[in-house]
Amino acid sequence: MTDFTLILGGARSGKSRLAEARIQALPGHQAPVYLATAQAFDAEMAERIAHHRAQRADAGWRTVEAPLALSDALGAQPPDAPVLIDCLTLWLSNQMLAGADLPAQVDALEHAILARAAPVVAVANEVGLGIVPDNALARRFRDAAGRLNQRLAARAGRVILVTAGLPLALKGGL
Amino acid sequence: MTDFTLILGGARSGKSRLAEARIQALPGHQAPVYLATAQAFDAEMAERIAHHRAQRADAGWRTVEAPLALSDALGAQPPDAPVLIDCLTLWLSNQMLAGADLPAQVDALEHAILARAAPVVAVANEVGLGIVPDNALARRFRDAAGRLNQRLAARAGRVILVTAGLPLALKGGL
Amino acid sequence: MTDFTLILGGARSGKSRLAEARIQALPGHQAPVYLATAQAFDAEMAERIAHHRAQRADAGWRTVEAPLALSDALGAQPPDAPVLIDCLTLWLSNQMLAGADLPAQVDALEHAILARAAPVVAVANEVGLGIVPDNALARRFRDAAGRLNQRLAARAGRVILVTAGLPLALKGGL
Repeated sequence: MTDFTLILGGARSGKSRLAEARIQALPGHQAPVYLATAQAFDAEMAERIAHHRAQRADAGWRTVEAPLALSDALGAQPPDAPVLIDCLTLWLSNQMLAGADLPAQVDALEHAILARAAPVVAVANEVGLGIVPDNALARRFRDAAGRLNQRLAARAGRVILVTAGLPLALKGGL
Repeated sequence: MTDFTLILGGARSGKSRLAEARIQALPGHQAPVYLATAQAFDAEMAERIAHHRAQRADAGWRTVEAPLALSDALGAQPPDAPVLIDCLTLWLSNQMLAGADLPAQVDALEHAILARAAPVVAVANEVGLGIVPDNALARRFRDAAGRLNQRLAARAGRVILVTAGLPLALKGGL
Repeated sequence: MTDFTLILGGARSGKSRLAEARIQALPGHQAPVYLATAQAFDAEMAERIAHHRAQRADAGWRTVEAPLALSDALGAQPPDAPVLIDCLTLWLSNQMLAGADLPAQVDALEHAILARAAPVVAVANEVGLGIVPDNALARRFRDAAGRLNQRLAARAGRVILVTAGLPLALKGGL
């Protein structure tokens, strides 16, 4: 059974930092793989991506960009390598913008995660705790993100909610 | 004293499913009553309502629609029947759109819940954890929803926050 | 080491009330100081501020308005007086609107809090759990607020998340 941890949190909650720290604390593994789903659409996004990369600089990570083909990328990594997926919610957004078959993509993602032999830590955003968005696309995205989080949380051995950098165990302890 | 449980969560957090499961796990009660507050204003809402109904299909629930007259509907159910209210936040939105006397309506709702002999489980949305909304109506709604949640949480024996389908006890344990 | 408690929560979550109650429960201190960061830009804000003032009426608080010069105000209070800052997120918003040097202001704030001899309780909003805002300023604010919360949470002895008036210990217990 895959050692799968899901890290949930809001924007700038410290969820990525916690996820990286958990991977780095693993004993005796291969170099960890960082599966990046972010795409730089503009300067703001490029800056955000660069900021994240700077945070893991010199820490020995191998970065693989997988804005859409995340399942394939998961399958292509060395079996012993722990993998961090950052983040599922951006991947979902990319899939929706690309007009993908969402149920099929989510099925494939779940299978690819559960097929890993080494630990997987995935980061996802909680986006459903504000006012109902005005536009229908944002509402569909919000619903899809919530459903994806529920589904993967049901499969994960540990689920952690991060607030202001502080972890709270929702499932399986810290 | 009424056995009253308040289930809080964001959009697509799994809060309704948890609420239904709690009602169905009750021993030796009458058929449960589902007090639905949703109104279908358009195709998207109609689809959402149908989705919720499909989720409780064949599970023995009696559904009563109460988008506005929720207090009356609570008083009209058999005393031994457990009741699920899904959800309080939509009911509040309906009241505001109808121009109702909100303090009087909230008083009546609280009294109607606390007058029940059989267990009551109520679902409500957390809507205050995003950026301040641009328009004043959304801000008023957000404030009213937060105040309603605080007030009913103070009266409930158990309050549970649901994230990605996972419950967290805020009051009274799981 | 400063006795510093950070209270996080959404809009109308009851976080200010909890913070006030914690200050009032302190044994044997001077009259507490309420450092208010809210500015009334319009009637809605003025009403909100008046509502908060009414909530602490007759409770012995001394109120100091510090929408921008919060660090100075912290330093100017009697050493033995417990201080409530309500709230950090409004102060951050005021700083951004004033075009301040944010890193310098945040440094000064952190130092001013940690220099206090008497207990400090600070309230902050969680604003990152909704859909990504449409406009860039709101996104920058959301990021800055999240980073501020992370930073002060790392320095606080206790961090409490409030939902519907109910506290959840994220750090250091209740």
